[in-house]
Amino acid sequence: MNIAIVGATGYVGMEIVRLLHQHPDAEITSVVSNSYAGKPFSSIYPSLRGIFDKTCDPLNAELLMEKADFFILALPHGVSGDLVPTLLNNNKKVIDHSADYRFSDAATYEKTYKVPHPAPELLNEAVYGLPELYRDSIKTARIVGDPGCYPTCSILGIAPLLRNKIVSSKGITIHAASGISGAGRKTELPYSFCEAEESMKAYGVSFHRHTPEIEQELSLLAGESVIVSFTPHLVPMKRGMLATVHLDLAKDVSEEIIHELYTEFYKNDGFVRILPLGQFPETRFVAGSNYIDIGLAIDKRMNRVIIVSTLDNLGKGSASQAIQAMNLMCGLPETMGLTSPAFYL
Amino acid sequence: MNIAIVGATGYVGMEIVRLLHQHPDAEITSVVSNSYAGKPFSSIYPSLRGIFDKTCDPLNAELLMEKADFFILALPHGVSGDLVPTLLNNNKKVIDHSADYRFSDAATYEKTYKVPHPAPELLNEAVYGLPELYRDSIKTARIVGDPGCYPTCSILGIAPLLRNKIVSSKGITIHAASGISGAGRKTELPYSFCEAEESMKAYGVSFHRHTPEIEQELSLLAGESVIVSFTPHLVPMKRGMLATVHLDLAKDVSEEIIHELYTEFYKNDGFVRILPLGQFPETRFVAGSNYIDIGLAIDKRMNRVIIVSTLDNLGKGSASQAIQAMNLMCGLPETMGLTSPAFYL
Amino acid sequence: MNIAIVGATGYVGMEIVRLLHQHPDAEITSVVSNSYAGKPFSSIYPSLRGIFDKTCDPLNAELLMEKADFFILALPHGVSGDLVPTLLNNNKKVIDHSADYRFSDAATYEKTYKVPHPAPELLNEAVYGLPELYRDSIKTARIVGDPGCYPTCSILGIAPLLRNKIVSSKGITIHAASGISGAGRKTELPYSFCEAEESMKAYGVSFHRHTPEIEQELSLLAGESVIVSFTPHLVPMKRGMLATVHLDLAKDVSEEIIHELYTEFYKNDGFVRILPLGQFPETRFVAGSNYIDIGLAIDKRMNRVIIVSTLDNLGKGSASQAIQAMNLMCGLPETMGLTSPAFYL
Amino acid sequence: MNIAIVGATGYVGMEIVRLLHQHPDAEITSVVSNSYAGKPFSSIYPSLRGIFDKTCDPLNAELLMEKADFFILALPHGVSGDLVPTLLNNNKKVIDHSADYRFSDAATYEKTYKVPHPAPELLNEAVYGLPELYRDSIKTARIVGDPGCYPTCSILGIAPLLRNKIVSSKGITIHAASGISGAGRKTELPYSFCEAEESMKAYGVSFHRHTPEIEQELSLLAGESVIVSFTPHLVPMKRGMLATVHLDLAKDVSEEIIHELYTEFYKNDGFVRILPLGQFPETRFVAGSNYIDIGLAIDKRMNRVIIVSTLDNLGKGSASQAIQAMNLMCGLPETMGLTSPAFYL
Repeated sequence: MNIAIVGATGYVGMEIVRLLHQHPDAEITSVVSNSYAGKPFSSIYPSLRGIFDKTCDPLNAELLMEKADFFILALPHGVSGDLVPTLLNNNKKVIDHSADYRFSDAATYEKTYKVPHPAPELLNEAVYGLPELYRDSIKTARIVGDPGCYPTCSILGIAPLLRNKIVSSKGITIHAASGISGAGRKTELPYSFCEAEESMKAYGVSFHRHTPEIEQELSLLAGESVIVSFTPHLVPMKRGMLATVHLDLAKDVSEEIIHELYTEFYKNDGFVRILPLGQFPETRFVAGSNYIDIGLAIDKRMNRVIIVSTLDNLGKGSASQAIQAMNLMCGLPETMGLTSPAFYL
Repeated sequence: MNIAIVGATGYVGMEIVRLLHQHPDAEITSVVSNSYAGKPFSSIYPSLRGIFDKTCDPLNAELLMEKADFFILALPHGVSGDLVPTLLNNNKKVIDHSADYRFSDAATYEKTYKVPHPAPELLNEAVYGLPELYRDSIKTARIVGDPGCYPTCSILGIAPLLRNKIVSSKGITIHAASGISGAGRKTELPYSFCEAEESMKAYGVSFHRHTPEIEQELSLLAGESVIVSFTPHLVPMKRGMLATVHLDLAKDVSEEIIHELYTEFYKNDGFVRILPLGQFPETRFVAGSNYIDIGLAIDKRMNRVIIVSTLDNLGKGSASQAIQAMNLMCGLPETMGLTSPAFYL
Repeated sequence: MNIAIVGATGYVGMEIVRLLHQHPDAEITSVVSNSYAGKPFSSIYPSLRGIFDKTCDPLNAELLMEKADFFILALPHGVSGDLVPTLLNNNKKVIDHSADYRFSDAATYEKTYKVPHPAPELLNEAVYGLPELYRDSIKTARIVGDPGCYPTCSILGIAPLLRNKIVSSKGITIHAASGISGAGRKTELPYSFCEAEESMKAYGVSFHRHTPEIEQELSLLAGESVIVSFTPHLVPMKRGMLATVHLDLAKDVSEEIIHELYTEFYKNDGFVRILPLGQFPETRFVAGSNYIDIGLAIDKRMNRVIIVSTLDNLGKGSASQAIQAMNLMCGLPETMGLTSPAFYL
Repeated sequence: MNIAIVGATGYVGMEIVRLLHQHPDAEITSVVSNSYAGKPFSSIYPSLRGIFDKTCDPLNAELLMEKADFFILALPHGVSGDLVPTLLNNNKKVIDHSADYRFSDAATYEKTYKVPHPAPELLNEAVYGLPELYRDSIKTARIVGDPGCYPTCSILGIAPLLRNKIVSSKGITIHAASGISGAGRKTELPYSFCEAEESMKAYGVSFHRHTPEIEQELSLLAGESVIVSFTPHLVPMKRGMLATVHLDLAKDVSEEIIHELYTEFYKNDGFVRILPLGQFPETRFVAGSNYIDIGLAIDKRMNRVIIVSTLDNLGKGSASQAIQAMNLMCGLPETMGLTSPAFYL
């Protein structure tokens, strides 16, 4: 299959290139970047010297039509304009990694991202690209919105509880932390080595733009409107994301029953690993991979469930999850090209 | 004043030595360590070569009596035996950094730490060494229990809310993270560079031994029994601690009113810095210092207050807080030797 | 092909498992570890949960004979005893990652490693496993000694110069630095996070045990006895190695000529990347891969060539280089399973 | 004493502020920054909130004359224009941290830094601010050029050998490495966390602008023209610098004799610590302090001395060394305000 990656020179784009290089049935026929047009991709990411030296193409819709059948967009939100409608009109399939196609409701998107939606007429058709929840819809989708990293980590951590009404849908508290690559390939001072190393902070306190995305999906799972406290943090590591979620129990259940429920819920989802009771995940066990690890416990004194879930913000949180959805959209085995274990070191 | 540091070769002990070297009115007359007895302190911490080369003394109570008037114990919990009673009987003053003298109730201590208390008869007299809450008692105390790092970070973050009944005492959720020095000078695999770098994890999920210490103090502040969800995490940095606390509002108040309340509550506490509204703390702004920085916001949708507080687990979380209490116990200015700003870099 | 990894639970062993998981023609039929016998490999490295859960076998030669045809030993030096001779007698092929089979001369080995050689009669037959220099011999070898990380980085950086007598064989100065995983999975204090993070040091100054290994190979390349200054350093990163080499020019040549010489020398070596003049390598461009990147410059004022070469100490410096040799020994394409680019992030 | 810091908002400026805060006889009466004029210094470095909140002044020479008696300039090279001459004409004393006043020869400066020298007529008078070599001249100087970090680390490491003609002045090889704060408060991509963390590289290979500065001083020490190989590297840590120097022995001397020579050479220099034979320095033992640690060994096979020296690039390599010179220029005890040990953690 011929694939174009638009916005290929950010970290998500780079990771997609790195991963697709190992994919047996995908050929990257174009990497698109206006900033680096005409430059070899490997001059931007020298790790790819001699491996992927293709020259970056400018963003020219007409040209791109001939170059590829499948498009992965890794652009910032709100800038792709009519590219997606144009691609669909030309019978291309598209995964968009920005927030543009994650919401069913244009108003929520516009309120959250403060820009007009480029193609609200497509939101009905666009599928939220979380295979564990929307596998069948993804298979037949033309346009998929690749979920955000915090939403993926939170939603998959919570889904079995809400779907089964084990917990109250009120008062859910999500504390999450991300490695610094989650901010993208930025040159701003707070992301410089000297300002980020050996430090931790909270940000987006009381409102972060991933909150509505999480709430959209949790509401669908609960069958009622759900709002959450979501507080993200930045920690001094490159990759990795961890969410710790507190939920009030609505039923008198044991840890064993909840563990069984998770195992059952994800029984067909090879990239979701439910840890044995008493074990909790660490980000290095998933960094570099498409896995998400989930551990759980009950705090009896508080009558709460505590969920800890981890993924790689550049893996299951963005790049490799996009490839997982791509595989589904193309009728390929879902795990193709994605079976690498985490780096560990 | 002549000071002995018992258990001086751990990280808290080392930090106390580093800080007291700058203290104009304190002389360290003995550093005690059975493991390193007879070795120069600077051979264990070569940063101190030529600066503090005193040889470590063995733990011999009789010998120590003659060496110092003031004792800071930085031993693990439950091992100091009858040292504290003996010291007090000889008219020495003592700050104990272990958990031994933090609890008013021996039963809670014994249940939490799974050891018999070495001197339960002293618990009534021992003062919890948080100057912001117990300044006057510390001034006249003979034995002070130096608070834990997580408790200091949590309690000072929450105190003004509970004391003023702005929030419910139910359902408090504390999500905290610590740098790795919080684990002490350990050689265990999980604290090795290759296993800790570039990774984050939760630990002590649903129960950590700092929980009862936090609850003891929050209950006193609230005037009723308080239990909390406390979940600690480990992040890949050496120093630094951050707590993010969610509390349900019990009153209809604005951020401005809460901010004023905090400013007023801590108006005489030079080491507590309440950040302007809209700003949140980062651990590098306090690492290496005795400061604790606190930021706050209201999440209107959830009707909650969110508090973010940061300190250095080796500073206000242990070593420099002990010196702050020592200053009070000795009638010295509270800030003496403690005015260094954070390293920043 | 059925492969057993003996000493599988160290970092080199783990990396071999990680890499072979992606190898299309290799099946790991046994992971051997006396310390962890009976435990699932994925309980030691939870990154492999659900991916490689095989239980560790004890080191029992008889049992192993039936389990595999090809053996990779990742044990410390001097402990494999008669395992290698026994395996060879049973028509197995072996790659040994310790220093045991790297030297042609048992006396040098014994002087360097202070242990008697377990099987000196095999040294004549054993091949030094550097494919770029010994490809043909490796293809037909029964026993290959996997080169050390510092030697690989140094020798490949220097080889074209010495072989072509462009430089003096006297006074070669190698300054090298390694990430901390080079020390292995250690729990010693100097490798703990708090003692290693944010610090750098030299070690093995004036003698390191990799020196004789480097000298053996450089002497063969030069056709005369070569001794070198080799000074290793430890830097606060997990993976990665960099060597900066100073050599006195013996001829009046330009940078362009030397660059051409390197390009020509390595024209059949896909894992050696000679950078364009003016560019120098960084360890993150090779970390996680089997590549070695080499940059060069002439310092005209000093009449010297400066070589900078980088590799991953767990990649081309050990684990992936062993697989490269294994491919050759088994008649497989040399690059099979090794084409992953570096992680970059 | 009233001190103005011009260019106060870079890392060197910030570190000077941090250190002078502890200095008993120095008051910072102005922090000058055109970019941040009108903003509180503690809004740029929040670690100083409540500690040093003074508002930044614009760079206005007239205004500054009234504000301070002593000036420390921490501006980039070549931009201070006629500020230094103007200050001197007004009987102020000046330490300049840029390269502007480090060279005795304007031509060397201009060739190295590619800018015209702002005040070549002052170079004769300006003193190179290395107290260990120029203590007496500094005491009476009006203008001192604060040495570079690499030069300080290299020159002090080598001085006793060259001064005593123990080594050849030919072929000296300096390999050095710096933490990333050495690059200043930069927002360029290579200094971002994600691009710098977990990686190492060489830079300035075959020529770095600190080379002529090192050569100027080594030539003076040797009494003949000295050129050196100097190769700097970047390592993933915030503070710290290490130089490993190889020098050819010119005499048959033992390690003991050289060790004695170093001890004698630096007997009046409290910030230079010569390590016992067999010990080598680590950057964490000096980070945050004004100390420089030096270890040494003889490589008998190569007939060379190997020197390893470490300092904090923001300490003895810039900010604290400037304060050391300031103390001398002001008739204060040389160590005043500089006795803090390294952070260690």
